[in-house]
Amino acid sequence: MEAALAAADAAGQAGEVPVGAVLLDADGQVLARAANRVETDSDPTAHAEMLVLRAAATALRTPRLVGCTLVVTLEPCAMCAQAIALARVDRLIFGAYDPKGGGVEHGARVFERTTCHHRPEVVGGVRETAAAALLRSFFRARR
Amino acid sequence: MEAALAAADAAGQAGEVPVGAVLLDADGQVLARAANRVETDSDPTAHAEMLVLRAAATALRTPRLVGCTLVVTLEPCAMCAQAIALARVDRLIFGAYDPKGGGVEHGARVFERTTCHHRPEVVGGVRETAAAALLRSFFRARR
Repeated sequence: MEAALAAADAAGQAGEVPVGAVLLDADGQVLARAANRVETDSDPTAHAEMLVLRAAATALRTPRLVGCTLVVTLEPCAMCAQAIALARVDRLIFGAYDPKGGGVEHGARVFERTTCHHRPEVVGGVRETAAAALLRSFFRARR
Repeated sequence: MEAALAAADAAGQAGEVPVGAVLLDADGQVLARAANRVETDSDPTAHAEMLVLRAAATALRTPRLVGCTLVVTLEPCAMCAQAIALARVDRLIFGAYDPKGGGVEHGARVFERTTCHHRPEVVGGVRETAAAALLRSFFRARR
């Protein structure tokens, strides 16, 4: 989570909403790390979670990331949650809860649907205060 | 929809689940067309919808595709539905309904959630029989 927070912090300083993610393999080795790049890349899908999933899958030459753990500073939205399910990621660890845009514990609750064919283990609220503080100070500075 | 069906058909012949998509601008001009490339690209996020959104956003240098229409042969999953909302696409036209994996009229029903901050106009069932037939014959051949 510290690496994800560092990536988020750097993204915030670059003008992106500060969310960072890291993907770990079954041995805890880092496969990919990324932060939100929606504005930088002009890509509405370039959330941190999507970027680490895509980077790791490309590197491993498989769309199925069995045994992996995704760590992200904010509760994933429905897009990222479904991508995590499609990628067969074993475990999701996230920082701040996101009542306004989350798709795991809020809103679409993607993993709870019968249309979701893989449900990762989920641990939310890890380093929640630090992750939320990054987002709060980013949005406060932009208002 | 005919262009999306043609893309889907080609994908099926290449061993991918046959789903195709086209993104149109406000004047009906094609901005991007793509088919599912999950296996080809080793990318769990490479659904046809994601590929046309990313291609058009990159080409137009903006993550917001205001005024655009996305046409796809199958009801989008939750990942693609949320991506369509994030990209601010005006209209979604899809072919076959997908009770097992859809995220628009089934399952997560992404656009109906308060966590969804943009709701496109949705038209489902366009050329439904042809789109469903492509998928059925693909899966029948693989069993």
